[in-house]
Amino acid sequence: MSIIVLGTVALDSVKTPFGRRKALLGGSAAHFSMAARLFTRVNLVAIVGSDFPRKHIAFLRNKGLNLSSLTMDKGKTFRWEGEYKGDLNSALTLNTELGVLSVFKPQVSEQQRRIENIFLANVDPDIQEHLLRKMHSPTLVGLDSMNYWINTKRKELIKLLKHIDIYVANDQEAKDLSQEGNLIKAAKRLCSFGPKMVLIKKGEHGVLFYAKSSGFIFSLPAYPVEKVIDPTGAGDTFAGGFMGYLAKSAKVNSLAIKKALAYGTVAASFNVEDFGLSKTSKLTPQDLERRLVKFRDCFSF
Amino acid sequence: MSIIVLGTVALDSVKTPFGRRKALLGGSAAHFSMAARLFTRVNLVAIVGSDFPRKHIAFLRNKGLNLSSLTMDKGKTFRWEGEYKGDLNSALTLNTELGVLSVFKPQVSEQQRRIENIFLANVDPDIQEHLLRKMHSPTLVGLDSMNYWINTKRKELIKLLKHIDIYVANDQEAKDLSQEGNLIKAAKRLCSFGPKMVLIKKGEHGVLFYAKSSGFIFSLPAYPVEKVIDPTGAGDTFAGGFMGYLAKSAKVNSLAIKKALAYGTVAASFNVEDFGLSKTSKLTPQDLERRLVKFRDCFSF
Repeated sequence: MSIIVLGTVALDSVKTPFGRRKALLGGSAAHFSMAARLFTRVNLVAIVGSDFPRKHIAFLRNKGLNLSSLTMDKGKTFRWEGEYKGDLNSALTLNTELGVLSVFKPQVSEQQRRIENIFLANVDPDIQEHLLRKMHSPTLVGLDSMNYWINTKRKELIKLLKHIDIYVANDQEAKDLSQEGNLIKAAKRLCSFGPKMVLIKKGEHGVLFYAKSSGFIFSLPAYPVEKVIDPTGAGDTFAGGFMGYLAKSAKVNSLAIKKALAYGTVAASFNVEDFGLSKTSKLTPQDLERRLVKFRDCFSF
Repeated sequence: MSIIVLGTVALDSVKTPFGRRKALLGGSAAHFSMAARLFTRVNLVAIVGSDFPRKHIAFLRNKGLNLSSLTMDKGKTFRWEGEYKGDLNSALTLNTELGVLSVFKPQVSEQQRRIENIFLANVDPDIQEHLLRKMHSPTLVGLDSMNYWINTKRKELIKLLKHIDIYVANDQEAKDLSQEGNLIKAAKRLCSFGPKMVLIKKGEHGVLFYAKSSGFIFSLPAYPVEKVIDPTGAGDTFAGGFMGYLAKSAKVNSLAIKKALAYGTVAASFNVEDFGLSKTSKLTPQDLERRLVKFRDCFSF
C-alpha cells in the first residue's frame, strides 16, 4: 500500500570533517522518501520556493515519487546550514531560513486523502495536524518532531500525539518530551500521551522500540559504519525504511516491526556514507537486501 | 575448561540515586567471578588486607571459587568510593585507597600455572604482566584495563597487549588508547597493537566486537533494563560471562563469540539491577538461560 509523507524539502549546506557542500537537496520528507520509495509508492507533501532548482524537481520525479502535492510558492525554499565535528554525533545548526515554510498549509488531492499509511516528518506540529485532519482513513500514522517544537509547541505536539500510532524520536527528544532519563521509562511515558508505539533512534547506538499493548521491547544496534561522511537526514532515512516496509507488508506484528527496524537501520547506514541524498538516491532494493544479510550476521546466533 | 582471573577484590562504597552502600564486597575479579562461575571453575588471584571481613571469604568460597591464590596481607584492603548521578552512565570516583594492592605480586600454584584460559581484569599492567609470565600454556588470554593505566602506564600496557588474545575496553578507553574517534577504526587500531580480537563495551548501548583475522564485526544492543540501581562492576560481569562461556565451549569461532557476547550482556544486565554482587551472586545458569531467550527476542527475526 502507498504512503504519504509530509515534511520539508530543503536546501542544506553542511560542513563535516570530510568536506563541505552548499545548497544540497535535503529536508525530512526528501530523506524519508529516498528510503520509503524502495518499498512502496511515495506521495510527497511539502513546499518549496520559487528559487528551488528545477533539476531537483526532475530528480525527485525520476525517483518515482508522486509530486502532485509538492507546492511551489513565491519566496525562498527552506534552508538549513549546519556543521558536524569530532565523532559526527550531533549537528551544530549555524543558520535556518524558514522561507515559504512559514506560510505552508499542505494541500492534498481527494485521492491522496484516502491513503492509509501516513508519516508526519519533522515540521511545525500545526502543519502536521492540518494534514492529518484532511486524511479520510488513517490506519498507520507515524510522527517525528524535533527539540525546537518540543520546547516551543509542547502542548500542540502532545495533543497531536493522541492521534499517532508510532512516535519516532531521537534519544534526547524522547528524554525531553517525557522528562524521563531512562529510555524505556521514556518510551512508556510517551505512550501514555497516546501513541501505541514509540521508536527511539540512538544514532550510532541503534534503536529502541516499545509497543504499549504487548509490552514488547525491541533493540537493535546500528549497522557498523567505519567512515561516516554526513549524518544529515539519517533519522528521516531510518523512518523511511521503517514505515516503507510496514506500508508494503500491510501488517504490524512483532516480526514485521523487527524487520522494519532492520530495514530502517540499513537504509540509514547508506545515508551517512556520503553527503545529502548521494547514496540513498542510487539505492536499489537489492542493495538493501544485501546489507540486511550482513547486518543480521552482526548479531544473529 | 577452568579459568584463572587476576584482578581486585575490593570494598566498595557507592552512592546512586537509589541509595548508598558502604564497604560492599566488590572489585574487578569478584564481579568477573560471579558471572564466570556459572560456566566453569574459577580460580581467583587477588589480594586483600587484614581488615577484610572473614564472612566475605566464606561467601566467595561458597560460590565455588578456588581461593588458593587469594592472598591476605598485612594492611588495608583496596577500597573504592564512587557516586553515580542522573542516567548512571558514568561513575564519579570520590576516593581510592590502594592499600595492599600497592605491593601485590600475584602467586599461583604449579597446578594453576597450567590453566589455559586467563583473564587479566583491571589492575596495574605490571601486575598483569607478572602473572601472565608465570602461566605455562595460555591459549585464550583476555585483558581489561582502565583510563588511569592508559594515561600513566601506556607503554607497559601496549607492550603487554602483544601477548593478549582479546582486549576488553569501554568506549572511552578504546578511543583514548587508539586515538581514534570512530569505534570500528579504534578496534582495528587496537588490534594492530597485538590482540587478535577487541571487545568494546558501550554500557547501555551494548557492545562492539572486532576480530582481526576474519574482519568480523559483531554488534549487540544491551539488554533493556528499566531500573538501573548500581552499574558498578557491570563491565567485569560482562567479561566474566563472555570469557566463562568461551572457556566452557573450548572453541573460539564466530558462533561461540556471538553467544559469549550475549551471555556477557545478560550477566551484566543482572548486575546493574541491584547493589554490588547482590543479584549476580544469587544467579543460576537457568536464570541466565531464561533471560538469554528474552534477549534474543529483542532483535532476532
